[in-house]
Amino acid sequence: MDGRETIAIETADDPRIAEFRALRDRDLTGREGRFIAEGTVVLRMLAGAHAAGAFMAEKILLLKNRVQGVADILALFPPDIPVYVAESDVIDRIAGFHMHRGVLALGRPMGCEGLADRLDALPETALVLVGCGISNHDNVGSMFRNAAAFGADVVLLDETCCDPLYRKALRVSVGSVLSVPFSRQGAASDILASLADRGFAIWSLSPRGSCDIREIPSARRIALVVGTEGEGLPPEILSAFQSARIAQVPGLDSLNVATATGIALYQIAAGMGRI
Amino acid sequence: MDGRETIAIETADDPRIAEFRALRDRDLTGREGRFIAEGTVVLRMLAGAHAAGAFMAEKILLLKNRVQGVADILALFPPDIPVYVAESDVIDRIAGFHMHRGVLALGRPMGCEGLADRLDALPETALVLVGCGISNHDNVGSMFRNAAAFGADVVLLDETCCDPLYRKALRVSVGSVLSVPFSRQGAASDILASLADRGFAIWSLSPRGSCDIREIPSARRIALVVGTEGEGLPPEILSAFQSARIAQVPGLDSLNVATATGIALYQIAAGMGRI
Repeated sequence: MDGRETIAIETADDPRIAEFRALRDRDLTGREGRFIAEGTVVLRMLAGAHAAGAFMAEKILLLKNRVQGVADILALFPPDIPVYVAESDVIDRIAGFHMHRGVLALGRPMGCEGLADRLDALPETALVLVGCGISNHDNVGSMFRNAAAFGADVVLLDETCCDPLYRKALRVSVGSVLSVPFSRQGAASDILASLADRGFAIWSLSPRGSCDIREIPSARRIALVVGTEGEGLPPEILSAFQSARIAQVPGLDSLNVATATGIALYQIAAGMGRI
Repeated sequence: MDGRETIAIETADDPRIAEFRALRDRDLTGREGRFIAEGTVVLRMLAGAHAAGAFMAEKILLLKNRVQGVADILALFPPDIPVYVAESDVIDRIAGFHMHRGVLALGRPMGCEGLADRLDALPETALVLVGCGISNHDNVGSMFRNAAAFGADVVLLDETCCDPLYRKALRVSVGSVLSVPFSRQGAASDILASLADRGFAIWSLSPRGSCDIREIPSARRIALVVGTEGEGLPPEILSAFQSARIAQVPGLDSLNVATATGIALYQIAAGMGRI
């Protein structure tokens, strides 16, 4: 363990690891703003986010046979963060299901940066992704992964989107939720009005968009707006702003929202000379 | 019901709906080549595939309160395909979990078209997607959805890929597995050699690809090859064929394989003038 002390957990009801108990049942509730990071990739991202001051790790829980393999990641955390270790049968009883990964951490956001703070912090040249009503955790996670890959400066989710810090969204994002700044508050119409005030060209993505994404003119500040897969964006948003579509074979169901976001961000980032 | 007869199922052990029992446990085994189509979108695709002669529907099982809502889809199936109907408690006991969707069908492929048949059937101008070692059902399903959206003529999976007819893959594909021709057989190296023999320009997708996907020259016949997310494509494939990368912010984990496939297919299909 290269000098890192660990604390053995012998029983599932040990109060020190209470936050990891009944993991699935409690994914959506009751950790008072705290979240569960799962797997080595997300643990490494949490270490980076902790060092950057954006998020804080509170404790780590590992399957005993994983300790050696993640020693280099543990070394990235300050020494006062407790590392609890349990055998397989104990960790399964804690989580409430078979935890073959066996790498868990409890984290929390360091501040509660609101929409206005996020907007004020944007650079002169900026690419913003706005999500409206995205309720599927896989899709939200994938959207953050794409935002990171194509250099979006911030992700702004309206208040009807699901929480990107939910365990599965965080895992699907491969930890990008911890590296790409985001907010999740306000109505979509207010978010878009704030962006328009700040000089953003606003493009909503829709299968019936009036222009092809390849025709979106380059601009210093661009916001891409995506909605839910079934319903799409509400008519009042589609009519208030410019809309763009992804060319595809006619007559088919539209693309998955995460894939569509990836393609549109790729195209816009290329147009802005970012990739 | 507009004249369509249904058959009431009163108990979960009724032998007529045996194939739908313990749905999750049996997803990967034991239906002798048959598959489960789930949800109204996939049911509609199955009706189309049945009419086209590619797949055959054997029976349909519906939650009683869904019958009226899917009457227009049922009308697309020949009248001799039995439609079984059960109340919520019965259907939950059949499936082994809470089936809030309540729309299920049992289907099977009509033929067993092999790789050579698929290749011989390709038009002069063709776009082919090849998957190597794709073991995640969500990713395989999304790849088919993208293949359909960007007009790929066929999807060729090597023998180490998972089955795209698995219930969840089929659902994620929104039924595209039933509309885009595919084969799943043979080693990747043999598939690629067959494509090369038939005049395909073969491009493997890799974060370390030697050219940008935007630089792939247009050609009459192009095959895009994608590998697993963790490992990527094996070195012998990467060294034997041309490789291309998707431009992205440096230093990050690569894109999800389904999203990467979507972006690359989009770019190649555009280059071929298909979209």
